[in-house]
This record gives sequence, structure tokens and C-alpha cells, in this order.
Amino acid sequence: MNRSNHDPSDRSKPVGADFLHLDPAHAPPGHTTDWLTDRLRTAITHGDLPRGSRLPPTRTLATDLGVSRGVVTEAYRRLAEDGHVRGHGRAGTIVMATMTPPPARTHPHTRPDPSPLFSPHPRPDVFDRLRQARARIDLSPGVPDLAAFPRAAWLRAERAVLTDTSASALGYGDPRGTPQLRTALTHWLARTRGIRTRPEDVLIVSGTAQALGLIGAALRHQHIDTVAVEDPGSLGVRHHLDHAGLRTPPVPVDEDGVSVDALRATGAEAVLATPAHQFPTGVVLGGRRRRDLIRWAMEGGLVIEDDYDAEHRYDRHPVPALASVAPDRVCYAGSVSKLLAPALRLGWIVAPPRWRPALVEAKRFNDLGSATLPQLVLAHLMASGDLERHLRTLRGRHRRRRDTMIDALRTHLPGARVHGAAAGLHLTVTLEAPVTDTDLAAAALERGVKAHPLTWHRQRPGPPGLVLGYAGRTDTDIREGVAVVGALLDQHTR
Amino acid sequence: MNRSNHDPSDRSKPVGADFLHLDPAHAPPGHTTDWLTDRLRTAITHGDLPRGSRLPPTRTLATDLGVSRGVVTEAYRRLAEDGHVRGHGRAGTIVMATMTPPPARTHPHTRPDPSPLFSPHPRPDVFDRLRQARARIDLSPGVPDLAAFPRAAWLRAERAVLTDTSASALGYGDPRGTPQLRTALTHWLARTRGIRTRPEDVLIVSGTAQALGLIGAALRHQHIDTVAVEDPGSLGVRHHLDHAGLRTPPVPVDEDGVSVDALRATGAEAVLATPAHQFPTGVVLGGRRRRDLIRWAMEGGLVIEDDYDAEHRYDRHPVPALASVAPDRVCYAGSVSKLLAPALRLGWIVAPPRWRPALVEAKRFNDLGSATLPQLVLAHLMASGDLERHLRTLRGRHRRRRDTMIDALRTHLPGARVHGAAAGLHLTVTLEAPVTDTDLAAAALERGVKAHPLTWHRQRPGPPGLVLGYAGRTDTDIREGVAVVGALLDQHTR
Repeated sequence: MNRSNHDPSDRSKPVGADFLHLDPAHAPPGHTTDWLTDRLRTAITHGDLPRGSRLPPTRTLATDLGVSRGVVTEAYRRLAEDGHVRGHGRAGTIVMATMTPPPARTHPHTRPDPSPLFSPHPRPDVFDRLRQARARIDLSPGVPDLAAFPRAAWLRAERAVLTDTSASALGYGDPRGTPQLRTALTHWLARTRGIRTRPEDVLIVSGTAQALGLIGAALRHQHIDTVAVEDPGSLGVRHHLDHAGLRTPPVPVDEDGVSVDALRATGAEAVLATPAHQFPTGVVLGGRRRRDLIRWAMEGGLVIEDDYDAEHRYDRHPVPALASVAPDRVCYAGSVSKLLAPALRLGWIVAPPRWRPALVEAKRFNDLGSATLPQLVLAHLMASGDLERHLRTLRGRHRRRRDTMIDALRTHLPGARVHGAAAGLHLTVTLEAPVTDTDLAAAALERGVKAHPLTWHRQRPGPPGLVLGYAGRTDTDIREGVAVVGALLDQHTR
Repeated sequence: MNRSNHDPSDRSKPVGADFLHLDPAHAPPGHTTDWLTDRLRTAITHGDLPRGSRLPPTRTLATDLGVSRGVVTEAYRRLAEDGHVRGHGRAGTIVMATMTPPPARTHPHTRPDPSPLFSPHPRPDVFDRLRQARARIDLSPGVPDLAAFPRAAWLRAERAVLTDTSASALGYGDPRGTPQLRTALTHWLARTRGIRTRPEDVLIVSGTAQALGLIGAALRHQHIDTVAVEDPGSLGVRHHLDHAGLRTPPVPVDEDGVSVDALRATGAEAVLATPAHQFPTGVVLGGRRRRDLIRWAMEGGLVIEDDYDAEHRYDRHPVPALASVAPDRVCYAGSVSKLLAPALRLGWIVAPPRWRPALVEAKRFNDLGSATLPQLVLAHLMASGDLERHLRTLRGRHRRRRDTMIDALRTHLPGARVHGAAAGLHLTVTLEAPVTDTDLAAAALERGVKAHPLTWHRQRPGPPGLVLGYAGRTDTDIREGVAVVGALLDQHTR
């Protein structure tokens, strides 16, 4: 065996520190302390060691550098003398000096987008821009009550997971997701959504956004370039399908849900639908329409069922997922974004058999599979009943806020028509008044209230409106936010 | 305001249970108990309620269904009598019956791939197939010692995060990642890799696999369709670039690293390089080559620096990242896969300014940003010093195992040449013997030992070899695994 540069017996030879890549070979002979002091001071003033950060223990650094501990102690003492660091006994040596700000650079890409936020045809970064906009009251739709996130249950489950999980489970895993979550999901979907599936047929993804990207890639791979979408329908969904290279012809939605006749007329081979609670109108797909849509699918169409908030219902019976009836024709997508928190970025796809291999391959190349620990924690919450308990808590809170918002709308927007009150996390209002809803939303934001103009979620013209989230807001905020909108509307229409 | 289907005063009207979508309106009048018993029994025998799952408390289910509690109690009693469930006092009512297995379905897509696993040109799912293959001893490269994962520190940090995090941080976030992790990373990269950057210039991604996909998309967007790669070089990296639609011409690697003259000759506008510890040879890019590569980049080339395991070094000084020298020409990618665990799926890109907008957009459409909680936990571990402590622990363990493997190779493969021993998580051996390394790896797997044939990581012909991971294996496994390979090689060459 030929090896030239390695001697395993020589284990104590210092090989320099990771810390700042300090290497005493660079020190002028006899001036190691000066050199070390200078390197540390430079690192502090340049900001490589930020204020509040901790220097390594003197013993550790001395060992790494192969110098006597006195050299390091003396360097730290000098830095303390000129105020760069301060000794804190057992807490170690802490950097005190503030860094010199780095030279201002021009960053053309971070220049604020000059287009108005509330354009009728917003750009793909519109939700980032809306999120960054400051507002006292955020009535953007799409999030549950995040203050109710079950932190204690999550931590308990995480402890159990960290105790139970084998070391090998921390390596690279199945791109479809952990068997534990896929199993827990088959039970969850059977119990709550009527879907019969097997763990090996579930694909765990990083939220519905990723589901749409993977499904888009699989469709493109099959030379399908069109997915019809509901209109009104989610702008975000449309952006994701656009990005995947898919055309998205609009299909009108009325009080019975999406029009299957109009869908047929588009000639599209696939449709994205929200049958349990249409976004943003809140309509439930009617019985006859449901049968029509299934017939369309049986004749060769693919339904992408975005079951985004089916769990949140107040005054109506649960509606089983379309995928429970036509599992071979429906590609079902769900997530925990509305159940627990969007920040978890966890969702799932249950696809017809013929679509699965392409979806798994797309997921593999996307990220090799979603992170393991959060999957195991979620599986734990599903199996322990904690998730169902959480959902019950949420439902009570959301219902009260929904009632508050309806009451506030009755007071402050008496002419508005309210849609979708029986379920969900938001209300959609349409307005008889001759206003432009993007202008109304812009004016509301100037007064500190965020909401979506309905126009964002439309492709075809229709009455102006707003989409107003209530689930995450206090009663006070809801009343005040709606009052601001009401006052603006009065001004506009006076 | 027009509303037809909602009366907020009527809050107590039962609206059916999520649980199995039970709705007593479907019960024949006067036979609610029979109906409920039957529905539950069917759900148990069909597997919708798996063995060990818990029925809802009688009071809860009775309230949801709007029936008297006696109805539910009686249904549970009947199920207990015929053995479907068992009462466990305060633990509730547990399903006992095993489910009838679902009818066997043919799943053409799950049919095992008939191609041999150890083909010289493996398919994209090769690592999934290798992972699924059973073996006593797994010497696949690419994972650190997962048994050393700092579970206690992780849980401590998670508790702190769950205590400190605001509710709004659990909503949708910045697609670039949390400010906390991006800030912690700027400090980490400055201290350990010599890279000066700002939080707003860091993009958090779901591991290097996703980084490659995003970079590939950004390159394609700029009409760049070729990324030269090192040869030997990572098969996985090549698969990901291929999938992004990029050609990957090979550039030879010698004892000084990748040949910049050969890179120039390819005409490629971008190269993927592993300067700190070339995969799989373990070579460090030499000083002159480093300058040549930077010059090539300054003349218009883009270097994608895959800094996959720079932190693991034993007998040599740290090498600053190439990105620290030429930040405007190097797109730097790192991850925690080799530092903590691949299962975390967390990594980062620090890109030259001109590439950032396209990368952020690709990330947004990929998954709207990586999950928040693990990012915050990692930021905590970086800021607290726990990550550095962990790395120190790992380094000691890995070095001992590295020494064990070198010793075992000296004993059992005396004719092998060992590469890259000064750093990393694996050794590459090249063999003088006239063997086909894919056959050798296949034979080793039959004897219960997994390793990568070097051919997988080559595009051009070269001496046969194996890539052998040691970081996650015990001394006993390492010795035994190497002995198996040695015995096979003796047979082959006798």
C-alpha cells in the first residue's frame, strides 16, 4: 500500500484551527502572541467575529494551534484591554466591539420592484412583497391560528422521536418519505377524508407548492401542457402551474362549484380543483357536479384535488375527498399548512398508480426527500390523537372569529355579499359598489390593513371583492380591520 | 348582506363527525346503535381503523353525532363483545382486530428494476436501490457518524426555539430562509471557511441536491447548458446535473486536483468543483491550480464549489473556500449532511450577485422555502457553540475509524493504493489487480458488504477501485468489511 503523506501514529501534530483558519506557521518567528492578537482584532473589526460571539476556550485554541496556553491568554488579555472582548468567567470570552459595517455594495437585484403591489396581474413574488409590507392588521387569507400551534405537544413528540429513532434513520432516506408518516397518513386519510390508500402509495412533499411543481413536471413529462383551473381560483396555484410551464385556462365557478361543461369545452386533459371548499369562494362542489366531474375524469381526464383546508368546517357535514371515489383518476394533494403551520412545509400526494413513478423521480431530484425529523414528529402527533385534539381546538377558535368577521361585515360593509362562511379560514366578499378592488386593497394597506383583492384570484372579469382571512386574528383586529375597509368603501362610493 | 346558508346563533347543531365522516342522518330511524356498530365494524375490518388505534371518547363522538352517549357506549360494548375492540379504562377503547389485507393490486411501477445494481452506468435510482439492499456492513461513503448526532443538544435547541419563536414566524416565510439561520451562517462561514457574506445574500436550501437543481435551473435560464465536472467525480452530482438538463463533460483530476487546462479545452462556461477535498479522490486543489482556476473564473467562467465535507480534516491544515477568494465568480454550496445528518435536508448557497434573483425565484417555486423550525434549531446550535463541539467529537471518532480502515486495508488489500486519507469520511482505493470493480462490489454485497465501485464515479476509463466509507462504522465492521473485500479480491486475482 502506497501512502506518502500520512502517518497515523502522528496524532498529536497540530494542524491549525478551524477557528478563523488560524495557522501559527504564518506567525513571524518569536511573535506568535502579536500575530494572534492582530488576527483576532482584525476578525473582530471586520465583523467575522460579531459582537456577542464567544472566543474558543484558551486551552482549546492553544491545543489546536500547538502553542502554549499563555500565548492565547495573553492575546485575549490584550484584546480585553482595548475593549474588543470581555472576560465573563465561566461564560468565556465575549466579543464586545461592534463590527465596522461592510462597504456598501450596489445590489441591483435587491432594488425594490417598482411595479405597484396591487396590480391586477401580480408578479410571482407578490406574496413575498405583501408579507414584507408593514401593516397593523393582517387579514391575508391562508393561515390558521398560529398562536394555537401545539408547541408542547410538538416538543413532546420531538423528544419521543429523538429517543426512539435509530441512527441509520438520520441518513439518506426513501425519497417518498418516512414509512412512519406514510403509515400514519393512510390512517388519517381513511378516517378523515375517506381515502383508502397504502403507505407505499403516499408521497411526502414539502407542502402543496412542491406538490404542484412535481405534478407539473410529471404532466410535462407526459406531454400534457395544460391544466384548467377554477375561476375565481388561487393566484398562488396559478403561479406555480405557470412556472411549471403549464397553461391554465379558466373554468367558471358558480354556487355549485366548477362548471364541468365549461371544463370539457377547454379541451384540457387535467384540471386543478378544490371540491371540498373552493378557493376563494368557499363553495362545495354539488352532488351532480361531483358526478359530472368524476365522469369527465373516467373518460380520461386527470383531476388534481387540492384539499387545502377540508378539515375546517363549522356548519356543514364533512365532504369526502374526490380521491376517495375515483382514486385512479384523482391526484390528491394535502398539507399541514392549514392544520398546523405553513412553516412546517409538509404535505403529501396520493396519485393514481400511473403517475407515481414520475412523481417519485421528480421528488428525488428535487431534494432527495423531505426532512426526516419533522415527518416523524407529525406521524407521532397523528398517531397519538394530538393532531385531532388540536383540530378541535382550532375549530372552536376559528368559528368564533368567523362569527366576529361576519358580524363586523354586517356592520361596516352592509352592502357586501359574503361567500363561503360554512367552512375554511377566510371569507370572500363581493361588492356591488363600483370600486376597483386592487385600489381598495392598496388603500387598506395604506391604512395598515392587509387583504387580497379578489381580482388577484380571477382570470376573467367579475364583481370586485376582497378575500379576508380571520383564522389567525383576534376579534379586535378583525373588527378594526373590517371597519377600516368599510370606511374606505364609504369614501370610494360616496 | 346576503347569506342564505349560515346562522351563527345556531352553534350547537351537530354537523357530523370527521371521524369516518359518520353522519347519523344515514341511520335508519330507530336503529342508530345498529348503524353505528355496523359502520365501526366495517371500518375496522377494512383497515380504516388499524389495530392499536383508539376510538374517540364516547362523550366526544356522541356530541359530534348529536346522539345520546348511551348509543355510542352500546356500540362500543357490542364491538368489544365480538373482539373488534377492547376497553382500556382511561386509555380509551382500542381496536384489536387485525385488518383484512387489501386486495392485491398489480403495481407495474413498483416492479423491481431488472437491471443489475452494479452496472457501470447506473440509473438515477441507484442510490435508493443500494440503500434498500440488505447488508450486514454498509461501507457506502457520504455519511458522518450518525450515532453521534447531538440529540440532547438538538432537543434543547428545539425547546428554546419553540419557546422564543413568534406565532407569525410559523406562517409562510422568506423563500431565502429564516434571518436567524442566514445570520448564524454568515458567522459560521466567516469563521470556518473564510467566506465573507451578508445574511441577505445567503439562500437556505434543502441540501446540496436541491442546490444543484436550483443552480441548474438558473443556468438553463441563462442559456448555459453545460457544466464540466471532475473525473473521477460524484455520480450523484452528475445525475442531478443531468436531470436539470445540463451536459457534464469530464475534466481529469490528478494529484493536484482538477486540470484547469483540460477544463478550458471543454469550452464549458461553468464547472462543478470540490476544491477542499475532491470527491472521491480526496485530493486538495494545489496552490497553482487554485490560482489557475480562479483566473479561468475571472475570465468569465462560473465555479460551482461543492464544499461537501470541508470540516472533516485530520492531518492537514484547513483550506479556505474558493468562494472566499473570488466571491463574484464562485457559487458556493454547503450543507449539514456531513456535519450533522443527511436526514435534516438543510444546506445553503452563497451565489455571486448576478445569480441570486434566479436562484431565489427557483427556490420560491420549488417549495416556498425550507421548513422553519429546523432552520431555527440549526441557527441555535451554530450560535451556542454546540455545532463546533459536535464537530470536534466527530473528528476524533472519524480519525480513529480512518486509522482502523487504513490498517485493515494494509492487512487485507496490501496491493491497494489509498487516496484521500488526510480528510473526509471515506477512503478511495485503486487496485492494480485486473478486476472489474462493479463485479467486485456486487460480490461484496452478496457477502453482506456495501461499497461503491469507483467506476460509478468515473466517466472516462481508469484503474478499478472502491470508495469505502468509514465514518459511521464501528472498528469491528470496518475490519470485517475490508476483510471480505480482501478475500474476494484474492479469489478474483488468484
